[in-house]
Amino acid sequence: MSEPVDKGTLFVISAPSGAGKTSLVAAMLERDPILCVSVSHTTRPMRPGEQDGVNYHFVERETFQSMIGQDDFLEHAEVFGNFYGTSQRWVEETLSQGKDVILEIDWQGAVQVRRLIPNCVGIFIVPPSPESLRARLTGRGQDADDVIERRLREAAEECSHALEFDYLVVNDQFDVALEELLSIVRTQRLSVERQEVRHADLLAALVSGGTAYTN
Amino acid sequence: MSEPVDKGTLFVISAPSGAGKTSLVAAMLERDPILCVSVSHTTRPMRPGEQDGVNYHFVERETFQSMIGQDDFLEHAEVFGNFYGTSQRWVEETLSQGKDVILEIDWQGAVQVRRLIPNCVGIFIVPPSPESLRARLTGRGQDADDVIERRLREAAEECSHALEFDYLVVNDQFDVALEELLSIVRTQRLSVERQEVRHADLLAALVSGGTAYTN
Repeated sequence: MSEPVDKGTLFVISAPSGAGKTSLVAAMLERDPILCVSVSHTTRPMRPGEQDGVNYHFVERETFQSMIGQDDFLEHAEVFGNFYGTSQRWVEETLSQGKDVILEIDWQGAVQVRRLIPNCVGIFIVPPSPESLRARLTGRGQDADDVIERRLREAAEECSHALEFDYLVVNDQFDVALEELLSIVRTQRLSVERQEVRHADLLAALVSGGTAYTN
Repeated sequence: MSEPVDKGTLFVISAPSGAGKTSLVAAMLERDPILCVSVSHTTRPMRPGEQDGVNYHFVERETFQSMIGQDDFLEHAEVFGNFYGTSQRWVEETLSQGKDVILEIDWQGAVQVRRLIPNCVGIFIVPPSPESLRARLTGRGQDADDVIERRLREAAEECSHALEFDYLVVNDQFDVALEELLSIVRTQRLSVERQEVRHADLLAALVSGGTAYTN
């Protein structure tokens, strides 16, 4: 009989563009060796400097559509004519190995994932003020006004779904926000659902007064 | 109109005797200034070195019984002829001030509290092995065998309720267990239920695209 394995937790992390999500997730992965991030599948062409399997799993449109047909996506979306999606099989396999998995997706993807994996943990990251968001979204100084306006509208729309998540982190100071995110991940590992698997023998021994454990 | 106050969280912490709960809670209070511990009411006589309002609120049996009559206890119990209880009024007032409150009670008290404050967070602490528990409970070397046997039975009984709590912390290394407990407390403060009160203005501003916040 194989030992029951402590199954990992799926963390869905969303944020408006400009909140610093990608840098925070990268720092989380550096700090916590049991964490990994899901690499999405996409049909968009690979850009210079990108690697297949690292930035994305780059697949043909036909492959993507056959994966949709086989219900292999936890969530997927079409953005500007390209498909993006998260493979359910990869996520499930990684969780079964006891790893925690981060999905960086938008609120609409989060809704889809929550339906399929209801015990996932949702985290929403916001910038500390609308000004800082605006500065981040307009800062490059080379975009047309209507592009900037669209980004701002999308950011506002994304933020209007913040309260559908379990946790809210304000990225005011990067290091504080990072500690808060790591704290959410570690705390999840202490939940009774996870600890009862990891410490099943200990709990049985304590309840039996030690006889089951010492013999 | 007064600002809505971020209401604190009630943490119910239980453990078998010998798990190190009292030292851990004392260390938590030293580290986290927003945490406080509930001081129980009791009818047992004050012992040398104890202070009224610090170790316990020492009250007469009549006073205790009239508090029961007024439903002032979140939980109460009679142990060896003395009453012990947690005043609901004190807990509610402290939570409304935005403080987090720890209750150190046994599993039976936890059941009572959960009924009245369903969003309380339950934490169960266990020792790392039955041997370490046995060593702690028999270590004083001056107790009769039947007293020791009773303590071991009670510890086993208490542990049999571990999975009724939200989190399980194994007190193997004191400092690790302390960090885990503090992490649970901090994470609770990041929950959307608490953050939506603290950051109501920010969220409104982000959703409106900044106009509500900057004007």
